Amino acid sequence: MEYELQPIGWVESPLVDRAAAPKQGNEGSPDAWLVFDARFSEGLRGLEVGDHVLVLTWLDRARRDVLLVHPQGVFNSRSPDRPNPIGLHRVQILAMKANRILVRDLEALDRTPIVDVKPVLDRRLER
Amino acid sequence: MEYELQPIGWVESPLVDRAAAPKQGNEGSPDAWLVFDARFSEGLRGLEVGDHVLVLTWLDRARRDVLLVHPQGVFNSRSPDRPNPIGLHRVQILAMKANRILVRDLEALDRTPIVDVKPVLDRRLER
Repeated sequence: MEYELQPIGWVESPLVDRAAAPKQGNEGSPDAWLVFDARFSEGLRGLEVGDHVLVLTWLDRARRDVLLVHPQGVFNSRSPDRPNPIGLHRVQILAMKANRILVRDLEALDRTPIVDVKPVLDRRLER
Repeated sequence: MEYELQPIGWVESPLVDRAAAPKQGNEGSPDAWLVFDARFSEGLRGLEVGDHVLVLTWLDRARRDVLLVHPQGVFNSRSPDRPNPIGLHRVQILAMKANRILVRDLEALDRTPIVDVKPVLDRRLER
């Protein structure tokens, strides 16, 4: 039994090298553009500059056959290597231009597929 | 281009009716068991009773063809109906027994597939 994710957009970022990329958004990550497929742009309605959102990505350069990152299980880690490599990134919207959204502090690599965006429910910092 | 998610386990919950289910975990949701496939149980190593974790689910009873929940875009909502119906649930671990984990306040329906578990990085409430 498997479930199919479809990309709704892609990340445009100066980060291209996994080894050199920050592990978390607040560890020196750059600003990046989220570029949405025009088919999904209606789903962005209501989002505004200044909003904090959770971006879910598909970490397409991760390994899926890893269960331990010594000595922890991967489900007790934020390693990208895990059975379903979904990235979870809390970012703030800096600018919006048609189907493009500029966000602060995104540690995802250039061309990472985006699979979902959700509003932050709690105003307190969420990571 | 599509990406395949594999279930790593399933939810066991008294919630069976979507219409009657709480919208968020802290809106009267019951305790529920996360039951992991034995192939993935090594990935749970290090998780402990009392830990707060993010559980990602595949909301298999959601609609994927919805972009607006009047008048907001779905990416500015937590509606289960969205192009990639990934549920994000912040829960606390109440008990662990082999490959079963009891958690507090989970709004997911019985038999919802689990696709990932991540530790909460920030001690402040995360939803």
